[in-house]
Amino acid sequence: MLKLKGLRSLTPYVAGQQPAGDRLIKINTNENAYPPSPRVAEALKDFDAASLRRYSSLDQAGLCQALAANLGVSPDQLIIGNGSDDILSMAFLAFFNSGEPVLFPDLTYGFYKVWAQLYRVPYREVPLTEDFRIRTEDYLKAEGGIVLANPNAPTGIYKPLEELEQILAANRNLVVVVDEAYINFGGQTALPLLEEYPNLFISRTFSKDAALAGLRVGYGIGHPDLIGVMKTVQHSINPYSVDLLAEKLAQAAIEDWAYYEQTSRQIEQTRDLLAEELAALGFEVLPSLANFLLVRPNGVSAGELFSHLQSQNIYVRYFPKAERIKDYLRISVGQPQEMEQVLAIIRAFIKERKEAGR
Amino acid sequence: MLKLKGLRSLTPYVAGQQPAGDRLIKINTNENAYPPSPRVAEALKDFDAASLRRYSSLDQAGLCQALAANLGVSPDQLIIGNGSDDILSMAFLAFFNSGEPVLFPDLTYGFYKVWAQLYRVPYREVPLTEDFRIRTEDYLKAEGGIVLANPNAPTGIYKPLEELEQILAANRNLVVVVDEAYINFGGQTALPLLEEYPNLFISRTFSKDAALAGLRVGYGIGHPDLIGVMKTVQHSINPYSVDLLAEKLAQAAIEDWAYYEQTSRQIEQTRDLLAEELAALGFEVLPSLANFLLVRPNGVSAGELFSHLQSQNIYVRYFPKAERIKDYLRISVGQPQEMEQVLAIIRAFIKERKEAGR
Repeated sequence: MLKLKGLRSLTPYVAGQQPAGDRLIKINTNENAYPPSPRVAEALKDFDAASLRRYSSLDQAGLCQALAANLGVSPDQLIIGNGSDDILSMAFLAFFNSGEPVLFPDLTYGFYKVWAQLYRVPYREVPLTEDFRIRTEDYLKAEGGIVLANPNAPTGIYKPLEELEQILAANRNLVVVVDEAYINFGGQTALPLLEEYPNLFISRTFSKDAALAGLRVGYGIGHPDLIGVMKTVQHSINPYSVDLLAEKLAQAAIEDWAYYEQTSRQIEQTRDLLAEELAALGFEVLPSLANFLLVRPNGVSAGELFSHLQSQNIYVRYFPKAERIKDYLRISVGQPQEMEQVLAIIRAFIKERKEAGR
Repeated sequence: MLKLKGLRSLTPYVAGQQPAGDRLIKINTNENAYPPSPRVAEALKDFDAASLRRYSSLDQAGLCQALAANLGVSPDQLIIGNGSDDILSMAFLAFFNSGEPVLFPDLTYGFYKVWAQLYRVPYREVPLTEDFRIRTEDYLKAEGGIVLANPNAPTGIYKPLEELEQILAANRNLVVVVDEAYINFGGQTALPLLEEYPNLFISRTFSKDAALAGLRVGYGIGHPDLIGVMKTVQHSINPYSVDLLAEKLAQAAIEDWAYYEQTSRQIEQTRDLLAEELAALGFEVLPSLANFLLVRPNGVSAGELFSHLQSQNIYVRYFPKAERIKDYLRISVGQPQEMEQVLAIIRAFIKERKEAGR
């Protein structure tokens, strides 16, 4: 390593692998099982490459209008960013400057801790309960802020709105960030709480329900004052982070939300069926309202099953270094026929193991 | 303003206006005068919208290979980001952690100061000389790091490589960032200095010479160790910040670099002609090797000329709050016929003023 003054040392977030190829089943990064709306392809076809010579817009007015209409909020309650990672990263810079610790669960989206460390924001990881739930009482006396994913990842467990509301009501003097990346697979959004709780900031992404992970668009929803602080941070980092194509294509997606209602319902159905089938094999299956399941295999270890699936070109997520879930695998919900294939391979592997063990 | 703990207060960068419309001449944000390469439009046409369901790649291998070949470096000397604002912003987090001040000119890209403030990096602004040059001697005893734009903005003045080399040689223990956003309009790149000076980090953008401001792609070039630190920072903020479309379209642009050599030479020619014509009107014109000119009008104030041009749907950049250049305007170089129109309007306005003043 070069000996230079001032180089930063960090432990970054480790994203799931992005293997490429036609004949694989990639269910390791919670991408959508279905392609984006046909309107997105049309918007792409209509896009004039010559317009790329100009900077993208600073306010994404068209996309904001479409989103505001879809969500029933006003455009000044919205900020658009380069994926919800961008939005959440900026939220750490924008909202958590009191020097007091921000609270989030010990088992949640791994990036919260990384951002806290990167931006030197003090934090405290609050253990989930034995059955992987967020205990409301643990968040009633926060000091620096709160970040909760709902549904939580990688558990998929949804926290009812009444419980979130208790946390918001007990912490009216600080910002509570609710990461709703997976909210549209069966949960109830916290949007209706915005009016009563200006300390609520919600983040969302086009990567999951809108099937546009490769486009990089996310957004935040909150009181115009909070949005103002976020925009100041955005304009102090990279004011043009949402490119022209991303803006147009995301708008096309929002304008065809009926399509996504359909695919999301289909994904929920496939998820619930997959959960039943895995439970029938004796797997522990956490109750999920996301587009993935966290499961503890039965009759075979998580590591063995992970490796076997990978040898069959099936990619799921395995967390061997996370003590509490090292015996679990996270499986994104794909299309029904993919899930049948995966189930068949799991069943065969377990049977083979059982026979070998006799 | 909501009374909440921990909200950040900042003075953000103020970008040039982005007026929309057909009948305007927009020469206020140094966008390219010509559209992107026809290969970019082809790559857009060939792009499959369905692929957007997947996350973008973590390493942008195709784009890196193309860039490495174009620049004569190795792919492990490259990092791709969401515009050079993203690259430079991350450089502040990656390289300037000693607690000692980073040096940059008092008159330069306004974002350096904003990033330093945002990330709480101590900094010192070093005054340019009376004639707006970067004095080499001022940078021979730096402590925390150095950031220089070459050519500098908003002056357009280029600093010869031999002088940059003196600065690199005198500061071998810390990182010197050279922002080459405008290097391809007549300057010589610092790339040949990389071998001797592993403390050099160069940032580049597709927004200026490659006419892709709306696509948001920039990159950094440096020793693999520096790139390693930058990637750790990138993976601690937003690992997927370069979207799939941006990667593919930027690669198409690089693969047709001959096209851009042509447009860049044309822009240089137009710039030099514009400089002559304005000088003939008695304007002070700083010697520029960028795609813009910083000029002090003659016979009319900068503010008056700015307002008059805007009334004619011509947008240039005016910095009334920057003491040293409040009497200047920055004019991006457009196509020849646009520049003729602008010149005609300026000449007429000055003549009118002269006659009114008699």
